[in-house]
Parts: sequence; structure tokens; C-alpha cells
Amino acid sequence: MKQEICNRIEALRQWMNEQELGGMVLPTMDPHNSEYVAAHWQARQWFSGFTGSAGTLVVTPTEACLWTDSRYWLQATEQLSGTPIDLMREGEDEELAVWMEKHVAGRIGFPEDMMVSQLYAEIFTVNTSQSATPLPAAALDALWPDRPSLPFSKAEVMPENLAGEAAESKMQRIVKWLEEKQGNELFISELSEICWTLNLRADDIPYNPFLISFLLLRTDGNHVLYTHQEQLDSEVRRHLESLHISIRPYDEGLRIQQERLKVETEESPVAAFRARKNDAEIAGFREAHVRDGVAMVRFMRRLEETRNEEWTELRVDRELTALRAEQPGFRGLSFETIAASGPHGAIVHYEATEETSAVLADHGFLLLDSGAHYDCGTTDITRTIALGSLTDEERHVYTLVLRGHLQLQNMHFPEGTTGLQLDTAARASMWREGYDFGHGTGHGVGHRLGVHEGPVQIRKNVRACTLLDIRARQVITDEPGIYVEGRFGVRIENMLLCQEAGATEFGRFLRFEPLTLCPYDLRAIDPEMLSAEERGWLNEYHRHVRITLEPLLDDPADRRWLQEATRPL
Amino acid sequence: MKQEICNRIEALRQWMNEQELGGMVLPTMDPHNSEYVAAHWQARQWFSGFTGSAGTLVVTPTEACLWTDSRYWLQATEQLSGTPIDLMREGEDEELAVWMEKHVAGRIGFPEDMMVSQLYAEIFTVNTSQSATPLPAAALDALWPDRPSLPFSKAEVMPENLAGEAAESKMQRIVKWLEEKQGNELFISELSEICWTLNLRADDIPYNPFLISFLLLRTDGNHVLYTHQEQLDSEVRRHLESLHISIRPYDEGLRIQQERLKVETEESPVAAFRARKNDAEIAGFREAHVRDGVAMVRFMRRLEETRNEEWTELRVDRELTALRAEQPGFRGLSFETIAASGPHGAIVHYEATEETSAVLADHGFLLLDSGAHYDCGTTDITRTIALGSLTDEERHVYTLVLRGHLQLQNMHFPEGTTGLQLDTAARASMWREGYDFGHGTGHGVGHRLGVHEGPVQIRKNVRACTLLDIRARQVITDEPGIYVEGRFGVRIENMLLCQEAGATEFGRFLRFEPLTLCPYDLRAIDPEMLSAEERGWLNEYHRHVRITLEPLLDDPADRRWLQEATRPL
Repeated sequence: MKQEICNRIEALRQWMNEQELGGMVLPTMDPHNSEYVAAHWQARQWFSGFTGSAGTLVVTPTEACLWTDSRYWLQATEQLSGTPIDLMREGEDEELAVWMEKHVAGRIGFPEDMMVSQLYAEIFTVNTSQSATPLPAAALDALWPDRPSLPFSKAEVMPENLAGEAAESKMQRIVKWLEEKQGNELFISELSEICWTLNLRADDIPYNPFLISFLLLRTDGNHVLYTHQEQLDSEVRRHLESLHISIRPYDEGLRIQQERLKVETEESPVAAFRARKNDAEIAGFREAHVRDGVAMVRFMRRLEETRNEEWTELRVDRELTALRAEQPGFRGLSFETIAASGPHGAIVHYEATEETSAVLADHGFLLLDSGAHYDCGTTDITRTIALGSLTDEERHVYTLVLRGHLQLQNMHFPEGTTGLQLDTAARASMWREGYDFGHGTGHGVGHRLGVHEGPVQIRKNVRACTLLDIRARQVITDEPGIYVEGRFGVRIENMLLCQEAGATEFGRFLRFEPLTLCPYDLRAIDPEMLSAEERGWLNEYHRHVRITLEPLLDDPADRRWLQEATRPL
Repeated sequence: MKQEICNRIEALRQWMNEQELGGMVLPTMDPHNSEYVAAHWQARQWFSGFTGSAGTLVVTPTEACLWTDSRYWLQATEQLSGTPIDLMREGEDEELAVWMEKHVAGRIGFPEDMMVSQLYAEIFTVNTSQSATPLPAAALDALWPDRPSLPFSKAEVMPENLAGEAAESKMQRIVKWLEEKQGNELFISELSEICWTLNLRADDIPYNPFLISFLLLRTDGNHVLYTHQEQLDSEVRRHLESLHISIRPYDEGLRIQQERLKVETEESPVAAFRARKNDAEIAGFREAHVRDGVAMVRFMRRLEETRNEEWTELRVDRELTALRAEQPGFRGLSFETIAASGPHGAIVHYEATEETSAVLADHGFLLLDSGAHYDCGTTDITRTIALGSLTDEERHVYTLVLRGHLQLQNMHFPEGTTGLQLDTAARASMWREGYDFGHGTGHGVGHRLGVHEGPVQIRKNVRACTLLDIRARQVITDEPGIYVEGRFGVRIENMLLCQEAGATEFGRFLRFEPLTLCPYDLRAIDPEMLSAEERGWLNEYHRHVRITLEPLLDDPADRRWLQEATRPL
């Protein structure tokens, strides 16, 4: 493999020489700014051998460097050793743009279909933008013989009783917004925005029920969807026709997108519209969580009662997925299951593979972060499960994380409160004891769309997304954690629905309803650390889980397990 | 009085006609952007009769309008009725700049010494800036016969053992900063920055120990202080001479300031330098709070034991001030005492006058917000005191405020945490019950300088000052409140010193040390509402207050009162 990487870089350099390119940039990007990039666009991974989900490779005639963030430094060091590629640590080593100014002479090529305007502005500075040379999407095909083609899954129309709003109505809202802004057209390239607008779903990207496409909405009513026509059956075609949307080849959309590359990111109202879930979406989310809760309860009982068998992390993933798949309306996982036992739990983005998959020990924790798409909605849940005996430290850390999780889940707050402010509720208890965690505390979740959805976030960093206020009808996760390096990790996550909590003489207030229905692990809690208020929240949540799920569990043993797991503390 | 206001506006209009002015703007401002404006600059108050601390008067040949914020709408309505001046509610009525564009033709005058660049940019838009006409500082003198002259108090040098850093060293730091920024000079107009830099104090502005002046620091070492030379005795002159500062007339500085009016606000490092208190300042703050605590304890005991006598709000102010004045190094109050009983407690900016001063009832609360300057530091404390029987609601609200106050006071947090994030700690408990308050939760405090000091604030609004991180050695208040309109108000305030709390594998942490030494009112607490953790914090604080103050109380009755007031809950 290492030798192959050397060959690929060498071939790339020869080709660059022919093309008279002084440098080549291979980002981890598709033309839709997607979080998950389809294999067709994973050129950076193919040329470098580095499999992390983020990174940018720059190759010159004499040098090759790969920039990636701290999550991946260890992995990249291993995967790049023995190749001609140097690791550049983002935030520590020289910045990509600065490095390019010094080390690249002449034209700098990049595949035009692996770039979006925001990234373009980051990579190409005033000094290098003159040399930026977009290359046709097919340019790499000759160098990358086994390049996967663009995925073509079957698209389907989301029934209106599940979407809660006709596509026509959504398009009218967008056109009205355009007219108010005195604009003529909106070109949408983000796949989630297109699927939400048109009430379409497909399966082009792993874990994301998206249709690869571009959408052009016009105030004059001549709308265009740029996509692979093969994906569209007669039902979808009729649906689009009824919306006055003509269908054009995907490559045409790609060309329009490229023309807009150097333009500032266009404003779009869709993210804000989409974040405010309608009644049908909310009902769907609730139903999806009932199904997901049943699967989780069955899994947790099975795991507990078969600890005499060998359980690997991969078996956890497999069996939990199978239980979810038994649920009605199951449409696939919403992201790769993180089943991390013992020290693996401290690796925030751990994913078990055949090589790493550990056998669960008879002590310590299993950190299990997973979720699914159902026809009616999407789930994202983390439970940290005691595998046997726990140390005092493990129980202490579990309870600190649970306190933060409960404090956030039970927040009431006036309208106008931002994600940055709410974040403090999840961290105050652990901060008091010198603990903290580096990732965000909460992200929006799409309705059978991306499991990570904007525009709001709950996290401790001052960013545009954390200075937006959380609003009623938004769905957001609550997932604090603590990761003790090399030993264990704890994360607890529910999905929350933001709801109006009425007005007082002091203002209009909001609160959260937990959507997730699954017990916390009572065996991992140090009850002495909980205040009476926190204990009350815990017991009330467990009561709610019990009375909701119990009638749906056919197996009396599952019911007994649930009763025990949700007994009052 | 109302007739007089009519006459003044009429005289102003005649004068405007002579000067060929189409409009006249009278802000509440001095050339130093001071929070407290000396009487000399209170033209807006003199011409309008409106005595609130904020507002802008605009007069045209046919109209006269006064803009002020919601705190003052009631008061302004009363004070402006029967005058030709209309109230403009900031945030509800038309904005000043927009109104001016529509209603003012020709040149728009403003006194050049009542303007700073920030305000200039707010008032004069692109459309009106051409007409903006600065008028000489003395222009109003003929219309305003009894205009107070500029105050001339005696300046003094702050001893180096109290200031903790020689003025020379501070100036060197500023010059070094200038050199790094490749600047040649820094013109400082903010009085607090000048006094901090030069280790000077005076008494030109009520409650603020400032010297009215401008300071020009130059990298070439030719520094200038523009002020009234009469204020400077031989010690101060020697001090300035040793710093290579020449003294020039104040009016010269005013002229330089005017030239810079339309320039963007210049960056200054002084606010950040000043916020980081040195060891001597910290020791001084601690000592000032010991003295202030002794005065507060004596006052609270006296009030409690003489409830058979008639106590008015003004008597509270008088007697508390007298007890503070007995303390060594007392240099005056740091702001107007707020002694607000019963419904007055719900008026956030209440100040008792001969007309409003209420007799304290035998039930409910006295909200007492007060502070002093001592030679070694400044205090700012609020206690809400039970005057007799309390309703369940009063006790409930008091305990909610106390919980928020204790939660913030006992925060630990990683470096980088902002005031916006910390604010949540003070509000989460009351938010859960639908309570909130409109003012900030904490402001910086100067070291024998302004009691409101930048750059950081703790509050729930997204602003530049709340997105700065709180750092070690900063001093900030912790003052949540709840105000039940027309009935009562509760606020509890301590000053906090931010300190390093050590590093863990999760980062470097900070914590607060309460500087204020004064019991909360145990009679007003509903102990059932406090968690065990909060009760622990309360008892530990009271123990700290008791062991610190007890040895300093000569009167055994004071000591007994303190023991009782700080008994464990």
C-alpha cells in the first residue's frame, strides 16, 4: 500500500508536469459542501492513503503535504509514514495558504467538483488566487483507474403526511423570501436543503438519504433540478412536473456551481425554514424515538444477559443494527455506530474495524453512540453502559456527565438565549472538578435528513452558529462527555425538542422535551453526587421512558428489564 | 420650572436663528466619554429639565425631541409634560439619526466638547454628516447664565505601594505596545485610563476620583498632559516632571480631541492592562472590603436593633455613609447609594430624594446597593435585607436570587470562558421558574477608579464585552436580581476576584474569590430550595466572613450579631 501511494504521487507529478501545473490541491470536498463525501470524490484519500474524514493534500514537483486537524494526527502519522507525504498539523504547523504562497510556483490545479466557495476563499489568498486553476471533473479519471462512479440510488417522494408540508408550499416560501430580497433566483447546492425543499429522499450518500443534485428556484416559476435522470421513476417525475421543475443533467448544474465558485457564499433561507420542525415532523420524531427506544432496550437487555458470551465491538454494532432493522419504517443508520469499550471510549471519533474491534471486558464501560433513519424521522443516541464492575472514578465521571446532561435537558430559558449560553449548563458541574470536553454539546438533527444539521449549535466556542438563539420547534442533541485518555470515556446523549414554555411578566420562555427514550445506566450513578432536583429529573425521565415503551415490549423479560432499569433512585 | 424650560428652548431657537443653524443636538456627553458627566457639561438637562442620566435633545426651529431609553420613559414623560419637548422612546419611536434626516434642514450644531467619535458616528449619518457643525465649547455660555464651571479639585499622586506599579513602568508598557503596533503616539481621553496610567487621582467628577485631562503619550518620550494647571501642587508637578510629561492647558487637549472626532475610535491597550490587577491592587481590594464589611455589619446590626425608630431611605444612606466614613482611608462613595424599600426595590435605578424617600415598613425588603472608595481600593455591594415579616413569595424570590449569585460565585471554568457563558450560571435557577432580570450580572470594578470598568462584562446579551474571556486577576461583580414590578425587588451582589485554579489534563482552570465580606440575610432564605452543595457554599462563605471580620469588631454586640448572622444553615 505504501509503495502504491508513492506510485500514485509520482504519477500525479508526471501528469502535473504535462499539464504545466506547479501544484495540485486535493481537498476532502464535494460540490455540495457535504459532511459525508461520496467515494467518487475521495481523491485525497486515494492519493494519500490517509482515511480520516478531513484533510487537504497539496502536491508540488518536490513536496507533498497533508493538513488535518488534531483528531487525526495519530492516525495520519501512521498512515503517511513510508510515503512521500508530510503531515501538517492544523493549528500547530504552517497554515496551508501561507505554505502555498512560499512553496508553490505557477498554476495551482484543483478538481472543479471538489471545491465550494467557502473552501476556495480559505485556500486561495490574494497572492495565489491568480494561479488557481480549476480542472474538469474528469481530469483525475486517467490517474485514478478504479475511481468509483457517482452513486445512483433510487429517489422517492416523502409522503406529505410525514413531511408535514407540501413541496409546493416550501417553494412558495422560498420564492416569497427571494422576492422580499429582490432576488430573481436561488441556486441551492446543499443536498439536505434540496431534499427538504422538494420532499425527496434517496440514498446516494452513506447514512444521508440525499439525492445528488443542484436546484435552481426562480421567481418566474421556471425551476430546474440538475440530477441524473436515471434515478427518477415515474412517480418522482410526476411530482417534479407538478412543481413546474424541469430536469436537466447533473453536469449542467456542476457548471453553474463552478461559475459561482469565486462569489461570496449566497444567503439561503432554507436552513432556518428547515430547522423549525412542523407538527408532522415532530410527531414523526416522537414515533421514531419510540421505535428506536424499543430496539435499544432489547439490545441492552440482550447484552446484559449474555455477558458470558464473547462480545466484540463489531458484534455490538451488528446486533443493535439488526434490532433496529426489525422496527417498522427502518431506512438505515444515520451515522456509523460508535461502539467503543474501555480505552477506546476515550477516542472521540472511534470506529471499530476488523483490526481494532476489541472484546468487551467484564468491567468498565461500553460507550455506544448510534442512530437510525426511520420513514418518519431520525435518531441519535449515546448511552454509556457498565460492562461489569466499575471503579469509583468511573462512577464519579459517569455521574458528572449525567449531571451536565440533565442540567441542559431541564433548562428553561427566555427567548433569545444562544447555544453558547446554554452550553454552560452542561459543563458547570464538571468544570468545578477540573473536567471538560473538546467537542460540541449539541447539534441540530434533520428530519430523515442529515444527522448533523444547522444552523444552531450548543458548544463552548464563540462562533456564528453558537451566537444564534435556540428557537421553539428546533431539534438539538444534548451530549456532554468526559474522556480520560488511554483509560475510558463517558458520553450521554438525548435528542431534545425545543418547545414554548409560556410567558411570565419577565418574558417568553422555552424549554426542552427529551425525544430519546432509553434508560441511563443506574449502576453507573453515584447517587450521593446528585442534588434532589437532579434525582427528581432522573426519576421523572425514567418514568416517562417506562410508561411509553413498556406497552410496546412483547417479551415479558424485556418489560421486567425495563422496569428494573428505570426504577426510582 | 416648565415655563423656564419653554423660555430656554425659545432662547436657544433665537440664537440658532442668529447662528444660521437648522438644528441643535445636545447629547449627554463630555469629551472623555465619561459615565458620569460633570454639571458643566449637563446642557441637555438644563435645556430640557429632564434629569435622567441618559438622553439626547434635538431642537429645530419648529420641533424639539428628547430620546431616552426605557429606564427613563416614565420619568421623562412627567418631566417633559408642559414643555415644548416631545419624548422619543429609544427602540420604539423613530431613531434619532433617521428623524434628523427627515426633520432637520441646514447646519446641525453641537457643542464640540459634548461629543466623542462613537456618538458622532451614531448621530450623524452619511446624509447629515455634511451639515454637522461643531460649536466652540463656550458657545452655550450666553444662553446658560448659571452654567457651572469646570470642576477643579486637588490632584494627588497615588502612593506606589498602593498602586503596585510605577507610572513610569505603565507608560513604558504602553510605549512598547505602540512600538509593536508601529504607532508614534497615543492620545488618551478616557479619564480613568489617564489616572491609572499616571497613578494620579483627583475629585473632579462625583463618585469618580478622576482628573479632567487628556494625555498624549509619544514613543519619542515627549509626553503631554492637558489639564488645568491650578489643580497640580508641587508634588504632582514633580511626579509629572520625573515622567517627562509636560503640562499644557486643557483647552489645547480639547482641540486635539476635536480634530480626532471623525476618526474611528483609536485602539488603546490601557483597558486590558488596567483590568489585570497587580498584587498590591489585589491586597488593597481585600483590605478595602474588610473595612467596608465592618461598616456594613455595624449598619445592619444598628438597623435591626432600632426598628422601633423611624427609618427613611435617606437615613439609611446617611447612617451607612457615616459608618463607612469612620473607616480608615475612606475617600468617598463609589456611586449614589440605592436604598430602596418595598416597591422602590423593583425600580432598578432608584435613588431616594427628599420627595420620594419612603419610611421603611415593618415587613418586606430593603434593597441596599452601595459602595465606597478607600485609599487602597473600591467596593460595590448589594444586600437585600428583611425588614420584618416576609411573604412566602418574597422568601422564594430571595432564595432564587441567592442561588444564582452563589452558582456564579462558585464557578470554576477553563481559560477562554466568556462573560456570556458565565452569565448562565447566575440565571439558570430563576429561568426554570420563569423569572429573569434585564440588567447585566457583572461589571469590572476599578482600583480606586470608576466603579464600572471595562473591558469585560457578565450579561446575557451578545456584545463585544460579553464575548471577551474573563481572565485571572480581573475583578468583577456578581449581582443577579429579580424585580416584581410595583411590589418588591431583590438583588445580591459581591465583588469577585478571578484567580487561577490550576491545570488538569483537560486544561487550565479559573475560579472566583469573593472579595465582599458581609452576611446574606438568613431570615430571607428558604433552606428547602438550596441544594446541599449550595448550602455548603453559603455556610463556607459565612464562616469566611465571620473569621475575617470578628476580630475587627470592638463592640461585643456587633460580634454577637455577626455570629448569629453567619451561623451555619
